[in-house]
Amino acid sequence: MPQPAHSFSASPTAVSHIGVLHGAGYVGGALIRLLAAHPAAALHTVTSRTFADQPVGAAHPSLRGQVDHTFTAPDEIAFGSLDALLVAAEHGRSMQVVPGILEDGFDGPIIDLSADFRFRDPAVYPEWFDTAHPAPGLLADAVYGLPEWSDEIGGASLVATPGCYATGITLTLAPLAQQDVPFTAHVTALTGASGSGATPSSATHFPDRDGNVRPYKVLGHQHRPEIRQTLGTHVSLDFVPASGPWTRGIWGTAQIEWPKATDPNTVSSWYEEAYAGAPCVRCSSDRLPSLQPAVGTPFCDLGWKTDGSTLVVGFALDNLLKGAASQAVQNLNRMLGLPETAGLLTSPVSVST
Amino acid sequence: MPQPAHSFSASPTAVSHIGVLHGAGYVGGALIRLLAAHPAAALHTVTSRTFADQPVGAAHPSLRGQVDHTFTAPDEIAFGSLDALLVAAEHGRSMQVVPGILEDGFDGPIIDLSADFRFRDPAVYPEWFDTAHPAPGLLADAVYGLPEWSDEIGGASLVATPGCYATGITLTLAPLAQQDVPFTAHVTALTGASGSGATPSSATHFPDRDGNVRPYKVLGHQHRPEIRQTLGTHVSLDFVPASGPWTRGIWGTAQIEWPKATDPNTVSSWYEEAYAGAPCVRCSSDRLPSLQPAVGTPFCDLGWKTDGSTLVVGFALDNLLKGAASQAVQNLNRMLGLPETAGLLTSPVSVST
Amino acid sequence: MPQPAHSFSASPTAVSHIGVLHGAGYVGGALIRLLAAHPAAALHTVTSRTFADQPVGAAHPSLRGQVDHTFTAPDEIAFGSLDALLVAAEHGRSMQVVPGILEDGFDGPIIDLSADFRFRDPAVYPEWFDTAHPAPGLLADAVYGLPEWSDEIGGASLVATPGCYATGITLTLAPLAQQDVPFTAHVTALTGASGSGATPSSATHFPDRDGNVRPYKVLGHQHRPEIRQTLGTHVSLDFVPASGPWTRGIWGTAQIEWPKATDPNTVSSWYEEAYAGAPCVRCSSDRLPSLQPAVGTPFCDLGWKTDGSTLVVGFALDNLLKGAASQAVQNLNRMLGLPETAGLLTSPVSVST
Amino acid sequence: MPQPAHSFSASPTAVSHIGVLHGAGYVGGALIRLLAAHPAAALHTVTSRTFADQPVGAAHPSLRGQVDHTFTAPDEIAFGSLDALLVAAEHGRSMQVVPGILEDGFDGPIIDLSADFRFRDPAVYPEWFDTAHPAPGLLADAVYGLPEWSDEIGGASLVATPGCYATGITLTLAPLAQQDVPFTAHVTALTGASGSGATPSSATHFPDRDGNVRPYKVLGHQHRPEIRQTLGTHVSLDFVPASGPWTRGIWGTAQIEWPKATDPNTVSSWYEEAYAGAPCVRCSSDRLPSLQPAVGTPFCDLGWKTDGSTLVVGFALDNLLKGAASQAVQNLNRMLGLPETAGLLTSPVSVST
Repeated sequence: MPQPAHSFSASPTAVSHIGVLHGAGYVGGALIRLLAAHPAAALHTVTSRTFADQPVGAAHPSLRGQVDHTFTAPDEIAFGSLDALLVAAEHGRSMQVVPGILEDGFDGPIIDLSADFRFRDPAVYPEWFDTAHPAPGLLADAVYGLPEWSDEIGGASLVATPGCYATGITLTLAPLAQQDVPFTAHVTALTGASGSGATPSSATHFPDRDGNVRPYKVLGHQHRPEIRQTLGTHVSLDFVPASGPWTRGIWGTAQIEWPKATDPNTVSSWYEEAYAGAPCVRCSSDRLPSLQPAVGTPFCDLGWKTDGSTLVVGFALDNLLKGAASQAVQNLNRMLGLPETAGLLTSPVSVST
Repeated sequence: MPQPAHSFSASPTAVSHIGVLHGAGYVGGALIRLLAAHPAAALHTVTSRTFADQPVGAAHPSLRGQVDHTFTAPDEIAFGSLDALLVAAEHGRSMQVVPGILEDGFDGPIIDLSADFRFRDPAVYPEWFDTAHPAPGLLADAVYGLPEWSDEIGGASLVATPGCYATGITLTLAPLAQQDVPFTAHVTALTGASGSGATPSSATHFPDRDGNVRPYKVLGHQHRPEIRQTLGTHVSLDFVPASGPWTRGIWGTAQIEWPKATDPNTVSSWYEEAYAGAPCVRCSSDRLPSLQPAVGTPFCDLGWKTDGSTLVVGFALDNLLKGAASQAVQNLNRMLGLPETAGLLTSPVSVST
Repeated sequence: MPQPAHSFSASPTAVSHIGVLHGAGYVGGALIRLLAAHPAAALHTVTSRTFADQPVGAAHPSLRGQVDHTFTAPDEIAFGSLDALLVAAEHGRSMQVVPGILEDGFDGPIIDLSADFRFRDPAVYPEWFDTAHPAPGLLADAVYGLPEWSDEIGGASLVATPGCYATGITLTLAPLAQQDVPFTAHVTALTGASGSGATPSSATHFPDRDGNVRPYKVLGHQHRPEIRQTLGTHVSLDFVPASGPWTRGIWGTAQIEWPKATDPNTVSSWYEEAYAGAPCVRCSSDRLPSLQPAVGTPFCDLGWKTDGSTLVVGFALDNLLKGAASQAVQNLNRMLGLPETAGLLTSPVSVST
Repeated sequence: MPQPAHSFSASPTAVSHIGVLHGAGYVGGALIRLLAAHPAAALHTVTSRTFADQPVGAAHPSLRGQVDHTFTAPDEIAFGSLDALLVAAEHGRSMQVVPGILEDGFDGPIIDLSADFRFRDPAVYPEWFDTAHPAPGLLADAVYGLPEWSDEIGGASLVATPGCYATGITLTLAPLAQQDVPFTAHVTALTGASGSGATPSSATHFPDRDGNVRPYKVLGHQHRPEIRQTLGTHVSLDFVPASGPWTRGIWGTAQIEWPKATDPNTVSSWYEEAYAGAPCVRCSSDRLPSLQPAVGTPFCDLGWKTDGSTLVVGFALDNLLKGAASQAVQNLNRMLGLPETAGLLTSPVSVST
């Protein structure tokens, strides 16, 4: 008799109390949803300056009737009540906030979702983000939280969740980078409008985005150094990001001239071994993934096809989930000693149908 | 200290085994998802002739890695292993299938999602569906499963889940129909393409649907008699359905010339009293709902505005959830003696952001 | 042998020189396109403060390679070189600008596209637009430019082009208003995002508009007094405007309880007589129009259906064309003594396919 | 004083009578529109088996009121009345039809839009299209009609209009191929749903296409041999086509590891020289094009960016225009001795705004 795929048969003996900082944006909303369905981690406090003292539904109308919390002003958060923190502040803001939280003595897990703790080398910040890092000492201890390629998350106190493009491209290229052969990956990837956040801008103006594809930061996206840090310098990346006319999800291809003829089975074995124990990566050989099946899920979908020395690998993920919130919860689960996918699978809703 | 809104603190002592008949379509997929996240009802068997012996992910790719079941051929289902049945067959097919299931002795709850058991009067079928009903005797016992307006669901053995438009329009007009004043409701409502099902057709051809609104069955939609059956003959309905350029959700307005000047507070009290105990209806006074916050949720959102004797009520719901699958699970929950919203709230994913 | 539908066999002996004021927005872009294809009226000067001295393609990238003009700063326009003016300024700006142009002695046709000269009664401005009109004397002379219902356009010096919703609703209801029977029209209409203009706002933020329908100004839209001015006080209007998830076009229904049973043929005769000589209205009996066929055209599509005393009339138009720019060119053509549809028909491109 | 960019000041002394075969599809509709606005070529006859004797508006509703023709049954076409033929039949059908037309003595220009006369080598047909060519003798005389790279169109009697992807990719790579250096181009390109034609299919089912990107024929698209025929064997092509969630337009990138460091100015000079006299190619240096500005136009937009030896070139075009109908009219114009862009520029409508 078949069993439900992911039953949580044990009633959790303890539920951790989680704080979400800057919870009024899209990533914040995604975190609130995930925690609401999580069996062992519950939203305790969620902050927003703009929506302070208003119900969560004021910023996230679809959550009305589902989540009872009201937003707390950032200054009024009681860190002592919290077991862990998820920080969904924008780039440049987390690096201002997190040092103070630590100085105030908070010693639970902190998972940051911005770029502010992703780089071991402080010199990246002035070069790529136009700012010096105010707490470079924290960078050495912070762990880059790509769960499929890090063993250090469980023991870390501060984890930096990777960027959305960086997640997809790194998961795509890492099994190849492991082969210790220099290669160049030509990546074209398109992202949905939710990647630009909840504040209107010309990049997300409906008449300009509907039916449009718009390349931007061609060969100059700030996720490039992040990917290089993980993959190593023997991988050259030629990356064209573009915006696509949809709300959620990143879809991309990596086209590679492999140094020698690629045997399809060999390539498959590289990927299958790399992700054998990875519950949030779904692999397919001899076909590239579509975007839609990955959207609304915590998965990064990967697939590949070869022809002689030509190798194409495709990837698809939800920028707000595997590219942000669900990956942060993967990290949270590891830091709390929970199963990696706790609260992440079998959502009652798909994004399309 | 705030508590998570919907914690299921008790580990359910028993999980009911559910069969989903015809589970390869969009409604079937929605049912599988809901059951996968349900604390006390688990998918046991799901049938599909087309996908027999294939994994659920073959029909529903986003469920790959989340649900382990394979489809069973309809002829091979073992009803003895099942505690309840959800029948997602198309109109005209359920009326062929359900009588045989009952004759074979299945005595658990059956929730049908087609139109085949919605009407007490067998004469509706030849008039509106071009077919005589093969089992008119079942119609007397079948309960029309609009949970907000029926007390008989809990004790029923066969429940007919309402149509998607009928759900929205009936929930919109029932608090007014209760006032026992004859009135005419002018309803215009637009539905997403998932309402047409998973089989391609000219109605869902992307170039013809993108950027388009297309009215159809104007003043002649088959949900009209269904609504009239619930509301009574003192409500006249002038209904224009149309297809809109999106995948999920129905949005509509009911415009009414009320027989006398309407006091906004009075109207609000009608709705608030009608839905005080209804966990799947969200009301707003003095504003009409948008579509997006209802999509991906089990809610029907209602809102109203008045100006003299003019009364406008708006509604929004997800056609695959409150218009089909989540309403069926509301009914299932009642029939199994579970809390009405078990498995329905706080999904980890919103459809938009 | 069939002939091309709309050949301009005569080489026009004179081409009028047209100025477009505030030509960097969506309506301005639509005007530039129409003039570029016009056989007897040519764009001479187009102004924009933001894009002064830049090519037209800087604001309207698809026109690069098709239109050679550069934008002129508003202060540098040489009115003496112009035969007619099209003013595409926003509401509240035209009323500041037009009086000065007249004082400077410009005596050619002026067609304004804002609300600033639509109302004969100056009291409308403080009530609906929160501003007193600075040149109320001009209102008496300005002609409301709905070409199908005005004989005065040809002789006017200042014409106010109707609003987009007002165009659709007035064309829909005017043949009924002619019957001199009081009635109430319940109108629900949805508009595309280009109606909000080229400046990003929360109303046009892609993640919030994609897959969404959002009602706004329910029972309070500023086009109501405009419609009433044309139709008369025996027509009551109950109007729900909403934004839809597309870029161009308005689609709506008018649902009416007609005082007596409506004979379909009688209704058809009302419409067919009213629009017999109207080249920019396309009528269909016994069916409501879809949106897409009207988009990209200068037409307002109308269609109707009756059932007893219930009468439903649907309408569809392109908000930037029949709702703005092409209607302005209809007016321009009349004022210049040209055929009404000069430059408007048989465009080489449809918006969908 | 500026002049209108593209005035046709001379009244054409003669208008050619054009026949469009198989005019009920999307490409047929695009051809009808272009001819309706053409100053020197007029639609005379348009055929359709399905819509025979029905007005053009039955297949193309937006053309109602703009084009007066009715469809002629294919068997009833009077070739003697026609000066030129545009054949919009599907692949495999033209090769059956065209030989008979020639045998019947038609000696005017024929422009075919299918793949059936694109290849000089008959062996391509059994390999790539699963069919032997019934008239291989015609292939030697047929001219591949990419106007920017062919001098033979003017004198040809049978021209094969290139495929949509092939047009974009060839225009993108040809200036590089001219450098006589072997290189590999890694191309990822996405197309709109109109490229799949007017018949509904699973590839164009709205719920599956909305918000989705779906790769197909990865490394195996049938435009590959077409591109190779033009560019030569020293160019290797690694091509990933994908379907995108919009109706019109193709957007793509070509990523190239150039054999030596590329100087941006040198690359620019290659493109600018190649397309100096090409009115339907718009070039931009140091930026890649967006899709939307090309849609609704007869242009292929190109742009490039370099970084060391990395070279990225982007392209965008309307698959129904530069990828089919407007390119066919470019060819028609050359064959009739007209200006290449006659009837193609300054349309009164943009597709977006």
